[in-house]
Amino acid sequence: MSWTPELRHSLERWLQEDLGRGDLSGAAVGDGQGCAVWRAKEPGRFCGGPLAVELFRLLNPAVRVQVLAADGEDVIPGTELLRLHGPAAALLAGERVALNLAMRLSGVATATAHLVDQLAGSGIHLVDTRKTTPGLRILEKYAVRCGGGLNHRMGLDDAVMLKENHLAWAGGVVPALQRVRTQAPWPVAVIVEAETEAEAQAAVGAGADGVLLDEFTPEAVAELAPKLRHTARQRGKTLVLEVSGVRPGQLRAYVSCDVDLISISAPVTRSPWLDLAMRHEGRLVRPAAGRLRTQGR
Amino acid sequence: MSWTPELRHSLERWLQEDLGRGDLSGAAVGDGQGCAVWRAKEPGRFCGGPLAVELFRLLNPAVRVQVLAADGEDVIPGTELLRLHGPAAALLAGERVALNLAMRLSGVATATAHLVDQLAGSGIHLVDTRKTTPGLRILEKYAVRCGGGLNHRMGLDDAVMLKENHLAWAGGVVPALQRVRTQAPWPVAVIVEAETEAEAQAAVGAGADGVLLDEFTPEAVAELAPKLRHTARQRGKTLVLEVSGVRPGQLRAYVSCDVDLISISAPVTRSPWLDLAMRHEGRLVRPAAGRLRTQGR
Amino acid sequence: MSWTPELRHSLERWLQEDLGRGDLSGAAVGDGQGCAVWRAKEPGRFCGGPLAVELFRLLNPAVRVQVLAADGEDVIPGTELLRLHGPAAALLAGERVALNLAMRLSGVATATAHLVDQLAGSGIHLVDTRKTTPGLRILEKYAVRCGGGLNHRMGLDDAVMLKENHLAWAGGVVPALQRVRTQAPWPVAVIVEAETEAEAQAAVGAGADGVLLDEFTPEAVAELAPKLRHTARQRGKTLVLEVSGVRPGQLRAYVSCDVDLISISAPVTRSPWLDLAMRHEGRLVRPAAGRLRTQGR
Amino acid sequence: MSWTPELRHSLERWLQEDLGRGDLSGAAVGDGQGCAVWRAKEPGRFCGGPLAVELFRLLNPAVRVQVLAADGEDVIPGTELLRLHGPAAALLAGERVALNLAMRLSGVATATAHLVDQLAGSGIHLVDTRKTTPGLRILEKYAVRCGGGLNHRMGLDDAVMLKENHLAWAGGVVPALQRVRTQAPWPVAVIVEAETEAEAQAAVGAGADGVLLDEFTPEAVAELAPKLRHTARQRGKTLVLEVSGVRPGQLRAYVSCDVDLISISAPVTRSPWLDLAMRHEGRLVRPAAGRLRTQGR
Amino acid sequence: MSWTPELRHSLERWLQEDLGRGDLSGAAVGDGQGCAVWRAKEPGRFCGGPLAVELFRLLNPAVRVQVLAADGEDVIPGTELLRLHGPAAALLAGERVALNLAMRLSGVATATAHLVDQLAGSGIHLVDTRKTTPGLRILEKYAVRCGGGLNHRMGLDDAVMLKENHLAWAGGVVPALQRVRTQAPWPVAVIVEAETEAEAQAAVGAGADGVLLDEFTPEAVAELAPKLRHTARQRGKTLVLEVSGVRPGQLRAYVSCDVDLISISAPVTRSPWLDLAMRHEGRLVRPAAGRLRTQGR
Amino acid sequence: MSWTPELRHSLERWLQEDLGRGDLSGAAVGDGQGCAVWRAKEPGRFCGGPLAVELFRLLNPAVRVQVLAADGEDVIPGTELLRLHGPAAALLAGERVALNLAMRLSGVATATAHLVDQLAGSGIHLVDTRKTTPGLRILEKYAVRCGGGLNHRMGLDDAVMLKENHLAWAGGVVPALQRVRTQAPWPVAVIVEAETEAEAQAAVGAGADGVLLDEFTPEAVAELAPKLRHTARQRGKTLVLEVSGVRPGQLRAYVSCDVDLISISAPVTRSPWLDLAMRHEGRLVRPAAGRLRTQGR
Repeated sequence: MSWTPELRHSLERWLQEDLGRGDLSGAAVGDGQGCAVWRAKEPGRFCGGPLAVELFRLLNPAVRVQVLAADGEDVIPGTELLRLHGPAAALLAGERVALNLAMRLSGVATATAHLVDQLAGSGIHLVDTRKTTPGLRILEKYAVRCGGGLNHRMGLDDAVMLKENHLAWAGGVVPALQRVRTQAPWPVAVIVEAETEAEAQAAVGAGADGVLLDEFTPEAVAELAPKLRHTARQRGKTLVLEVSGVRPGQLRAYVSCDVDLISISAPVTRSPWLDLAMRHEGRLVRPAAGRLRTQGR
Repeated sequence: MSWTPELRHSLERWLQEDLGRGDLSGAAVGDGQGCAVWRAKEPGRFCGGPLAVELFRLLNPAVRVQVLAADGEDVIPGTELLRLHGPAAALLAGERVALNLAMRLSGVATATAHLVDQLAGSGIHLVDTRKTTPGLRILEKYAVRCGGGLNHRMGLDDAVMLKENHLAWAGGVVPALQRVRTQAPWPVAVIVEAETEAEAQAAVGAGADGVLLDEFTPEAVAELAPKLRHTARQRGKTLVLEVSGVRPGQLRAYVSCDVDLISISAPVTRSPWLDLAMRHEGRLVRPAAGRLRTQGR
Repeated sequence: MSWTPELRHSLERWLQEDLGRGDLSGAAVGDGQGCAVWRAKEPGRFCGGPLAVELFRLLNPAVRVQVLAADGEDVIPGTELLRLHGPAAALLAGERVALNLAMRLSGVATATAHLVDQLAGSGIHLVDTRKTTPGLRILEKYAVRCGGGLNHRMGLDDAVMLKENHLAWAGGVVPALQRVRTQAPWPVAVIVEAETEAEAQAAVGAGADGVLLDEFTPEAVAELAPKLRHTARQRGKTLVLEVSGVRPGQLRAYVSCDVDLISISAPVTRSPWLDLAMRHEGRLVRPAAGRLRTQGR
Repeated sequence: MSWTPELRHSLERWLQEDLGRGDLSGAAVGDGQGCAVWRAKEPGRFCGGPLAVELFRLLNPAVRVQVLAADGEDVIPGTELLRLHGPAAALLAGERVALNLAMRLSGVATATAHLVDQLAGSGIHLVDTRKTTPGLRILEKYAVRCGGGLNHRMGLDDAVMLKENHLAWAGGVVPALQRVRTQAPWPVAVIVEAETEAEAQAAVGAGADGVLLDEFTPEAVAELAPKLRHTARQRGKTLVLEVSGVRPGQLRAYVSCDVDLISISAPVTRSPWLDLAMRHEGRLVRPAAGRLRTQGR
Repeated sequence: MSWTPELRHSLERWLQEDLGRGDLSGAAVGDGQGCAVWRAKEPGRFCGGPLAVELFRLLNPAVRVQVLAADGEDVIPGTELLRLHGPAAALLAGERVALNLAMRLSGVATATAHLVDQLAGSGIHLVDTRKTTPGLRILEKYAVRCGGGLNHRMGLDDAVMLKENHLAWAGGVVPALQRVRTQAPWPVAVIVEAETEAEAQAAVGAGADGVLLDEFTPEAVAELAPKLRHTARQRGKTLVLEVSGVRPGQLRAYVSCDVDLISISAPVTRSPWLDLAMRHEGRLVRPAAGRLRTQGR
Repeated sequence: MSWTPELRHSLERWLQEDLGRGDLSGAAVGDGQGCAVWRAKEPGRFCGGPLAVELFRLLNPAVRVQVLAADGEDVIPGTELLRLHGPAAALLAGERVALNLAMRLSGVATATAHLVDQLAGSGIHLVDTRKTTPGLRILEKYAVRCGGGLNHRMGLDDAVMLKENHLAWAGGVVPALQRVRTQAPWPVAVIVEAETEAEAQAAVGAGADGVLLDEFTPEAVAELAPKLRHTARQRGKTLVLEVSGVRPGQLRAYVSCDVDLISISAPVTRSPWLDLAMRHEGRLVRPAAGRLRTQGR
């Protein structure tokens, strides 16, 4: 994961969302120091350790977090994931947000890993889509990578995709591509979504860098892919072929097709959270009386 | 839904997340005006119409959105949900974020509605938890209300809940409650999570406003609830009884218990998105040539 | 005080407000290290030490602040409150904002403490209102707690209060309460402000959790309170009784009434700031010449 | 008042502070349209009308606010200040924040006006200080102008003031002034605070643009001012003379002194809020049933 | 230009930067309405009209701006660019920021157009670099497009470029490419900067999508380009060839080379601003007396 | 340079601008530690060292930066400016933004220094204008100081300048000055721009603190200045005389005039960036295998 200021601001906002005007329950434990452990409660692919580290650091730098399971690691019930030390009130105040994030992302990673397994040995990459939870785009896509998938474009600005609505309003793939090429940075790939063989051929003929075959049967893909590759080769052009609209259970039917990618939104839109929990270890250590704080929080 | 500046800022951030440095694909359609319709692709409980209205307004005030299905309304495949008119490039630029939000929230509302149905006639309310997607707390809880559920506390600051970790570190329910009552605003309810009958009785005896019976069988709840109510009545105290740790499929086993609430996270943590789609209607209307813009976007 | 990201952002904004494009006067002292002390100039209840610590840390982490008087402690002229060490220019740049905050909050705490004294032994709590300076809500309410008061609701979202305007527009207390209960989270208390005995009885009868008797004489309260408690008991309901509209000088007239709370805005809306000052101690220590900075500010 | 984006953001933050996750009480009145009026409850100088206009606009553009009393106008109990029309829930949601702001600022304006009256005819201006509530600097200074006062510097960046701590750490007024002049923009005035006649003369001799005589008696000022003016004239220099440390009740003792300004913090640090209230007028107008919203909030 | 919330926030921040605590000079003109015109003072390529429109709208929606010259249009001294109507104080408050932006961007567009002219008919595109003024990246790159250039990658996230430092630390182009391909989204192009023929061939052999020949003479490029194309063709791969390190005056020496792009930073890093000015037209129209404002700014 | 929270936020935003959703190229070097050096590639005046220190600290606190050349120091090709140690991926991720900032500011400082040299010994200060790059105001003005210049006003709020448009709309200098004096803080200087001798005399007569003679020949200034000083002396008023509209090459023609300031925008609007570069030193040091991170980034 590559950190940005914006990602840190997101973590702060998510803490703020739960804290509101401040945690009221933490007053119950006063100002003692505690230790707690995160464990998996069901089997799956873990994701979210470094995020928890940073989240607690932003909440209170006096909290120390030790990562015991790497992102992308498979865990079983009872696997220790993190060990936390610090002010007990801070451990309790950050617990829910950190767990919500890790449970969600581990759920995405776990679901991705199950699908990636189906493509093992095929040379086809499983890729994600832009159907992601608002605010979690780069994290859910990071979780897809932890699950063994590859990322499709991250947003509307790092690749062009011309879909049915675009083509209808643009008046066809040729004028659409022409307009886009003068505005987009040169390294940006232009991908065209095709519903029919004719559309796919038109896209390749017009110079698309990638073609997405939407809701084609395995047989149709098997037949069409070589034709499209042939057209591209004649233009001296690298072509990326992608299939979409495949149900999770039918991935294996496409493994012998000559395509590069299968894109699927299910790991993000249909995956349950992975169950994780934090539990205290031992008692609180109360600070010695009479000391006054210097420069703390 | 009650609008706040922060909610509008969230919508802007979610647009920004997808737009990045600006939508590149929209160049394909130039500056024409288009019309598009949202439709449901599967049956469920719709949620997200007013959010889509505001999202498109923030993206480009020239877009007009007509809401055709109210939040909380049941829809079937083909039901028209929204009708949008405006600059085609803006309709395309906002489409994915608006749909992601509505599909996610409609998924939560739909799952909630299914569970609420199981409690029909029992007088027990289904309530949510703080297991919500980071950044979506108030919207996912709004979706729960659209599904017929009631909200539990919204964050760490509008109610106190003392759970296992709190009680262990605080040294018991009595000192925990004492510390909390001096710090919390007086209208704030204090709820104690109990794993055993003894803990539950201790909580009521210590003056808790609510007790959450976690992972009790229906039989255990049926037996314990009247005892707790009796203790509370003797203290002249209103007591709210809540059950948690119930699997979605076992809700009905609790309908005859004398409890007020069953809290469950499944509608948020285990629900698939509801499938919705936007489709263009008719062709673009190109603006007359030669006009220069005044004060537009 | 429970820290949140938002509270830290507020401190940063308040520093920014005074600094604008940067402190120009600090150039007078160059880059030497200094020491300064805060002292009280009049008697009162101190509040604002940990805020000053964090404020200087955000301004420049090289500043070290030692807290010599705890928040909520009574001070007299000359009492040492804080001791600061660090870059003299930073001590001067942060001085005014930190003092403004502490003088204001200590003024609120001092005024609260005077009123709380009047209620000593009565079992009635002094509570605040939502009449707080914009931007200082949680801090002024924290100062009220430092003065010995209890907080009323913190905002529009952690309790419901139905006042004269609400009831008039809602068409009475019964429909108002019904609408509110389906929208508000279950732990949220619903309080009704009553101007007459009839309104108060209607509110209790409709199931309000609290009733606020506004501008009732002590005699009227003494007579009405038991009746309201009786009605509540019959409904098996805990009732919180609150009195408002009392002048600061007349608090004692209510101490024998059977009410739980007296709410009063005077400590926030009518209190003078407590006079505090910062003074340098000793001379500057200039840094050795010729050194180049590594990773500093 | 000169509007800036930052001032609008402040208004939004103050709304957000009170709204939190959304107003719960507003549900009581549903979606009807209402009318309300603001009135003064005690005599004073009004300030805050245009702020209320903008605040409600930011909360909900459907609210219409008519300003009936200008900022800086004297009002008596019953004077109508504002008339508001719009969604009743929005009028209730914004009421407290808008009133808090106007009551606070009107309190400052009223206290200022009382002091300015004492200086009438003297040619001496009453000016404020940097003792202002964090976050309200430009508004409290605007209120001072509405009260007839003039503003002193707005922050640390629009004028230099060398006070006791600066001079002690800088090693005197001469090196302090030298260092400051090379860093500060040329139009920036440099003011020196003097506790003794010698310090005042040194400051004028060193080329200060203004001298602030702190805690001098009227007699001492009367004697010293002409000497300082003489020194300045010899340097061909305009000199601004300011007196500070004057108690509110003793202003008139200085009216015959040859000084330009008397600075005083009392209107900000010791003024009570002016009592104002909002009251509904008439009943709600409910929207016709069955309509669906287009592009509203 | 594609609008994003972030771009609007940038405009607001730039206004705020100049306004600080509010424009003081505008008080000179009071509250009258004025009209003003922008004109070019030297010949060049204009850029910045729609930005000025939005900037004034954000400052004060009562300002109306008419765009008279399109972005990308060539202008001569005296050409009318914009016509503005509205509150005179707002026209003066926004003037400098809007002009600074347009003068800077028009300078970039003008310098770009001069270089693009040199490549006319060659089929080679002029592209920019990441050497852009902090905060102005998307606008300076927009100005390059207005000047007839094409954009290179917009940031570190929409294309990979492996430069000398990357390759040295990665231990060569092969491991560098391998690591990058598993982390980057699939549509992202990978470009390698080469200082020698060997490096260029290694890059193509390792599967780079683009090769940047840095500081090669025209002769060296002419000789090397066909070899690289040959290698790429054998791998069935589209190859983009880019030249960098060319002085502005030597562009024409490369027009007969078989390359796709020449990247150059001079239009951004070495271009003077284009001189533009705003001038009032006619007198102020003062508002009729006695009116009170409703819902304005 | 005086640090403010806003300046740090600007640095974060500029990092974010380049990073977008995260640096993709850095994956090439993995997680090793590296060392790099910044060097000048052409002669000039360096500016931007402390900014680079803070920028890398905000990006990743594990980076250590040693400043080898002070801001305001003259450098030649090869001069070492900074030495950086830390995670190689962080050095690469921050490189471009830090260099862009320093190259731009060093360009401004270098151009300023050349002009300041022309005024050597004249007693006239070179000052800047408000023609600065949006977002870089305080940094470009800091660079001007590093080049030996003095700053003019920083924005619209720290001095008043009445220019042609103001005077035309205000109906002359006398009403303009009157209106401004009641609104502006007392320490604020009021400067009037004059195009003719009559306007200049009117401004002094009306009590302006400074007069700016725009586009006057050296001869005209030489003749007019003593007259204006005479008028000011008669009013017992300090007068600051400023000349503007001078071409960079003609500065020396004014050195014998009795003026205080020459303002010129060329160092900001017409200066090329100073060429600087970062180069790796030695190989990466890879972390020992098998360690898990604690509380890192």
